[in-house]
Amino acid sequence: MAEVMGFQKIRIVLVETSHGGNIGAAARAMKNMGVSRLYLVNPAEFPSAQATFRAVSAGDVLEGAVVCSSLAEAIADCSLVIGTSARERKIPWPLIDPVTCAEKTLEMNHQGAETAIVFGREDRGLKNEELQNCHYHVNIPTSGDYSSLNLAMAVQVICYELVNQSGLPLPQESWDQPPASAEDLNHFFEHLERTLVQVGFHDPDNPRQLMSRLRRLFYRINPDQMEMNILRGFLTAINHASSQDTAALPVDNTKE
Amino acid sequence: MAEVMGFQKIRIVLVETSHGGNIGAAARAMKNMGVSRLYLVNPAEFPSAQATFRAVSAGDVLEGAVVCSSLAEAIADCSLVIGTSARERKIPWPLIDPVTCAEKTLEMNHQGAETAIVFGREDRGLKNEELQNCHYHVNIPTSGDYSSLNLAMAVQVICYELVNQSGLPLPQESWDQPPASAEDLNHFFEHLERTLVQVGFHDPDNPRQLMSRLRRLFYRINPDQMEMNILRGFLTAINHASSQDTAALPVDNTKE
Repeated sequence: MAEVMGFQKIRIVLVETSHGGNIGAAARAMKNMGVSRLYLVNPAEFPSAQATFRAVSAGDVLEGAVVCSSLAEAIADCSLVIGTSARERKIPWPLIDPVTCAEKTLEMNHQGAETAIVFGREDRGLKNEELQNCHYHVNIPTSGDYSSLNLAMAVQVICYELVNQSGLPLPQESWDQPPASAEDLNHFFEHLERTLVQVGFHDPDNPRQLMSRLRRLFYRINPDQMEMNILRGFLTAINHASSQDTAALPVDNTKE
Repeated sequence: MAEVMGFQKIRIVLVETSHGGNIGAAARAMKNMGVSRLYLVNPAEFPSAQATFRAVSAGDVLEGAVVCSSLAEAIADCSLVIGTSARERKIPWPLIDPVTCAEKTLEMNHQGAETAIVFGREDRGLKNEELQNCHYHVNIPTSGDYSSLNLAMAVQVICYELVNQSGLPLPQESWDQPPASAEDLNHFFEHLERTLVQVGFHDPDNPRQLMSRLRRLFYRINPDQMEMNILRGFLTAINHASSQDTAALPVDNTKE
């Protein structure tokens, strides 16, 4: 399915990552979203047991990772380089959000051109000279109160938006019953009103908003045909029970 | 700023989490996005050193966490309950994506009504009977190849969409220079063309597409006033250098 989505021209570049665990968690986050190409610039711990542990089923992403000795090497063949940045910089750079980052990346990918999305160190992010190798800076919106995301979490959000913006339809579960038709619903409303009158809950001469409210409620539910049958069966059962029990007093309508 | 955004009526519920580290990472992910209310249903390890370690600066979220003995207790006062679900269920339930989840949650929050977003166990998610306590199921789109997100990563994505859909504007860095005007640009293009002719790179009698291409390029850059001054200064320097060095041969225009 990753191939169907076609993220082949997109790479995630992690610069001078300190903790192997973060590399593994990033690899898992990537694979969850169908991104498989990982570049590591001077990782402190790699390969490592922690990386493998946190990658869980994304060991193939770690095995395929390209280790580079400079950012320049990691992005040399890229037509679009987007650097993650949390801080304001001395020289402002075009700043985009993860949605726009995904749009630009997908457009490049569609054209068959390489894109790198670059993530900095856990504690200090990317250096200014690294950020000046980027076409754009991407900033993940936060509450402002505590804006420092874990590295792998940032990878997760950026890669999630790639899937999100690629317009992959949600794997909607098909409903197990066909929906009720407008005619079904109107028959049901007639039956419901008759039954409300029969049990003395509804006075057609003084209807207030009762039927309007009930119609609105059942339209909101958007019932399927089986649900409609269940409700109709319930009303029929009430009809029979009420006609037999002629001694039953009308219920006082105190609700409306 | 979390207060400004007003996520006060939104809680994250983690059901029977096995690993304290995941609770801590979830707390950090929440706080990064301005969500502060954490409910824990029968956590296996809590409080724990791993939770505190992974929470980093979100210790207050852990300290404020409400530990419950059942899901029913954790969601009792909620008007909207959304359960995370990766798997197809026997009885299909209304399935929404994280964007719609955020929209529905923000709408409730705006109305002052409580919403719970419920996350299941690391290995098995939510049980069917738990999912049947939900108005909606939310599914994070994945590549399909490896769809099992880490628990805290799922919390991160869902909370990120809350910020994203709340329409909080990107903290755009103000550009440090005002943009160049159309007139500035036209003066520059005239100066550029004169200079191209002067150095023999451009023949106005045989212009081909040169100026069109250069105009398009500079419009795309959308230069600011200082950049315009720098470019104009550069052209003036070329003008002076070229007029003094009358022996310079015209450069052959082989580019176009």
